Amino acid sequence: MAIVTLLTDSGETDHYVAAIKAKILSLNPGLAIADISHKILPCDIAHGAFVLRSVFNDFPKGTVHLVAVDSTGNSDTTSIAIQLEDHFFIGADNGLFGLISDKSHQQAVDINSISPMASTFPEKDIFAVAAAKLASGAAITSLGKPISSFKKMIGRSVKATRKLIAGHVIRVDNFGNLITNISKVDFDILSKGKNYTVAFARERFRKINSNYHQAEQGDCFLIFNSLGLLEIGIYKGRANDLLGMELDSAVNITFDES
Amino acid sequence: MAIVTLLTDSGETDHYVAAIKAKILSLNPGLAIADISHKILPCDIAHGAFVLRSVFNDFPKGTVHLVAVDSTGNSDTTSIAIQLEDHFFIGADNGLFGLISDKSHQQAVDINSISPMASTFPEKDIFAVAAAKLASGAAITSLGKPISSFKKMIGRSVKATRKLIAGHVIRVDNFGNLITNISKVDFDILSKGKNYTVAFARERFRKINSNYHQAEQGDCFLIFNSLGLLEIGIYKGRANDLLGMELDSAVNITFDES
Amino acid sequence: MAIVTLLTDSGETDHYVAAIKAKILSLNPGLAIADISHKILPCDIAHGAFVLRSVFNDFPKGTVHLVAVDSTGNSDTTSIAIQLEDHFFIGADNGLFGLISDKSHQQAVDINSISPMASTFPEKDIFAVAAAKLASGAAITSLGKPISSFKKMIGRSVKATRKLIAGHVIRVDNFGNLITNISKVDFDILSKGKNYTVAFARERFRKINSNYHQAEQGDCFLIFNSLGLLEIGIYKGRANDLLGMELDSAVNITFDES
Repeated sequence: MAIVTLLTDSGETDHYVAAIKAKILSLNPGLAIADISHKILPCDIAHGAFVLRSVFNDFPKGTVHLVAVDSTGNSDTTSIAIQLEDHFFIGADNGLFGLISDKSHQQAVDINSISPMASTFPEKDIFAVAAAKLASGAAITSLGKPISSFKKMIGRSVKATRKLIAGHVIRVDNFGNLITNISKVDFDILSKGKNYTVAFARERFRKINSNYHQAEQGDCFLIFNSLGLLEIGIYKGRANDLLGMELDSAVNITFDES
Repeated sequence: MAIVTLLTDSGETDHYVAAIKAKILSLNPGLAIADISHKILPCDIAHGAFVLRSVFNDFPKGTVHLVAVDSTGNSDTTSIAIQLEDHFFIGADNGLFGLISDKSHQQAVDINSISPMASTFPEKDIFAVAAAKLASGAAITSLGKPISSFKKMIGRSVKATRKLIAGHVIRVDNFGNLITNISKVDFDILSKGKNYTVAFARERFRKINSNYHQAEQGDCFLIFNSLGLLEIGIYKGRANDLLGMELDSAVNITFDES
Repeated sequence: MAIVTLLTDSGETDHYVAAIKAKILSLNPGLAIADISHKILPCDIAHGAFVLRSVFNDFPKGTVHLVAVDSTGNSDTTSIAIQLEDHFFIGADNGLFGLISDKSHQQAVDINSISPMASTFPEKDIFAVAAAKLASGAAITSLGKPISSFKKMIGRSVKATRKLIAGHVIRVDNFGNLITNISKVDFDILSKGKNYTVAFARERFRKINSNYHQAEQGDCFLIFNSLGLLEIGIYKGRANDLLGMELDSAVNITFDES
């Protein structure tokens, strides 16, 4: 049996998350449920997508990810299941799944198409049922009619040339660290043999650390993190507060002429 | 083996919840534990009861619900186990269990009556032990001496006549939605063929939506939610803040003469 | 198979905790994972150690405790596994493990010594791998080279004489209760047959309650709690706010001459 993960914006003060879990366990008490987070900011699709993109591949292939972020309230929103990178994703067709991978999906179905039901709590009545079935071994094609495409939001892109990489902060984490959308892959291609300057807020850095250990308390550090993304932090401090930066703040790397 | 759920007001910054889980797993490492919430407001019996009432029936019959809300500190409080609607509930006899169901209980026992112990942490020393035994298959009658009744708090009641349903907000959820104690069952009986006005704060509505999808961003919506209760929300906004309403605010439905 | 517990300062809004869980489950999908807390204050070793010390022994012997508190960022920090009181602990060698027990450790190894890797996310890449192996039955000695000692922080000590016990608040819990480092063991030895005065803030008490039940709403109470430590609380109130006390505030017990 596959693991079912839960990612919601429901918080932990209500019955919503427990109701989803209870539904899954009622259908198959043997299923293992792993919480990813229930503290996605209400209706914040970018936040939910960032967390899901950062972690889904750490779970075993075949894991079923139930996503309840901004999943009620949209007009004309369908409930879908997607197979992507050999993982399964279940949620509202609200654009979030377009942000979690650059690969093409393998299959997609409308999970409220066989015996359509109206529900004011689709996360429990529709998503949880589909998740329990998938994790118990049902084929995705048995869950509903195939759909050829689904809604895809597009993330802020990085502008990269031989002289400049222009990126942005895409996540301020629990520690106040600033995670950008500048990837190590792009940097390595463009930086070869060149000196460079990383500029953000009023700071200018000419070096990216290779590990956190090189920072002293209170020092600002730049590092390519475990996601392969440039991260700005202050060791034992909150970089966002101390640097005056937030989601969407600009971070630029300029390369010297070689 | 049955599932054990946990509902506490202990928060997540201390060892209390983990100590309860550890005790259960020490007695039976094979038991499945599902968190309902640990973010009930400290000693808020109404909050705990609302969440438990809203979700317990979604779990399989036979589930054991350990409730640690306002469970230490009362004089003369006993520790009890109750069978109700084919579910088991364990906690302090502080009135909470009177709020979770309108049905009569099947059995009730004093779980600290066989070898009474004094404990400053009954949730671990008494509740967890009883929960592990029940979930492992013990009969409720083996846990302690039967009691004929237990303390029951009574919730705010709705006043319903042919001209008026007078209710109140009983829960402001994580999204700022206002859940009232006005039930669809009552409304359907009284509204037949009549026009009506729903009044709250400075708002007057003459229509209740049938699903969230009918709202546009920033719109106020009225809906009978998945619990069968009238809910007031603002799509992508916090209704409590925007309408100036809170727990206990009045919501009235008046019916036109037909 | 042993239980794996998780204790982190990572919060619940990011992918970090889920990534650690996913790694463990990828290596052994059958392992049971129990969250202790993810709400340790960022980099607060004293907070993490207090919670771990208070609960680890409630888990079955052989449990594997993965601790990710202030675990990246220190220069020269190694990743270690320790056997102590028949439990296993995995984490950064940052001093925390010196605060969780007064007993000597049984074994200790450097878990990044066999095929050393550089990682910006050792909690996932190193700790989780070692935890999965240990919980699956591997010997601690198979995880890395033995080390003779590890870093040990030393907690604030209590000054105890025949006339005085001078202690401090070591934890303000979720309810605002003030937990001190004054132990019942010390108190019982020194108080025999004597009257005493407990002094803190502007309060003077000449009696310690034997259970919470002796307090009335709004009353200040003193009790030796389930950890065997003197605790100051206000029933249905936040003692820290109402008494103007916080972490490290002084609490003194003076004994009358007998």
